[in-house]
Amino acid sequence: MLSAEFTLTLPRWIPDEVDADRRFTDDEERVGLAIRLARRNVVERTGGPFGAALFDAEGRLISVGVNRVLPEHCSVAHAETTALMLGQARVKRARLNSDGARYILATSAQPCAMCYGASIWAGIDELVIGARAEDVMELSEFDEGPLPADWVGELEKRGIAVRRDVFRLAAREVFDLYATLGGARY
Amino acid sequence: MLSAEFTLTLPRWIPDEVDADRRFTDDEERVGLAIRLARRNVVERTGGPFGAALFDAEGRLISVGVNRVLPEHCSVAHAETTALMLGQARVKRARLNSDGARYILATSAQPCAMCYGASIWAGIDELVIGARAEDVMELSEFDEGPLPADWVGELEKRGIAVRRDVFRLAAREVFDLYATLGGARY
Repeated sequence: MLSAEFTLTLPRWIPDEVDADRRFTDDEERVGLAIRLARRNVVERTGGPFGAALFDAEGRLISVGVNRVLPEHCSVAHAETTALMLGQARVKRARLNSDGARYILATSAQPCAMCYGASIWAGIDELVIGARAEDVMELSEFDEGPLPADWVGELEKRGIAVRRDVFRLAAREVFDLYATLGGARY
Repeated sequence: MLSAEFTLTLPRWIPDEVDADRRFTDDEERVGLAIRLARRNVVERTGGPFGAALFDAEGRLISVGVNRVLPEHCSVAHAETTALMLGQARVKRARLNSDGARYILATSAQPCAMCYGASIWAGIDELVIGARAEDVMELSEFDEGPLPADWVGELEKRGIAVRRDVFRLAAREVFDLYATLGGARY
């Protein structure tokens, strides 16, 4: 019997960690939230060491995501894809900015090859990143996968501004913590 | 209020189109199913012109997927990602081949940049493809997105065999049909 539906869920601690009514008005506040989500996901053992959050241009929070690969048996359930799926379902648009507004995805670490592609189709205007891919691969056994040589340029060509190294050291620390706690590779 | 879960569903016609008990023993049967799913998805107007199916090495069907981007408000819900999510949930493993068996993903058209990355993390051993990316972009307004220069080599390096141009002409015809019926760009 083939499955006809699939449900992806966030961990139960999310409302405890996230003040959904707060305005997140700059890159530091936005990536800071993504890093807090990544860290909490490690501490609670509810998935891999990655977090992401989606905002509108005024800093209102649309959705959050964390890596849920192992708990949900779903290799697609990275932090970025999860935040994008939940955000799009909430606003009922497959391309977020088809309403003419601007949207910002903040992530605790550089998107992997899959999430890189996902960020192109999602209708975001800005991608703000904490740790670099080399941090992820230096501090953990995660593979980021093959990207186009000029991956930033390819995003910019499609109207997506990229800003990197926001709270990079704090973002790196999440991988240290994950290794210390003996986390599995997702 | 943040969303804490998201459910992805397949169209209702799937059991009518798919004989889940049949064995699909070669590339033509497997890609043939993916193309039939793509075509039916167009005719039924339940999503974009893409289909995919996941098999074990004996040709047993694990899951199927079609593009559900617009109906589900989800830019992640491509045919390949949908088949992978449903298949992994069914077998309860995030990496399909972590059980030591081999798995085959058949798709009606070359995976986009996102599905390319997704295919690397999914635990598949073979990727079998109908239409080429240039067919998709010639016959429709879909963008396949930026891939690494040697995208086939990068998959093979990770143990994933790639076979292309299986029923390529039939796979191309789905895009013609989609254009004829005035399909939206997903």
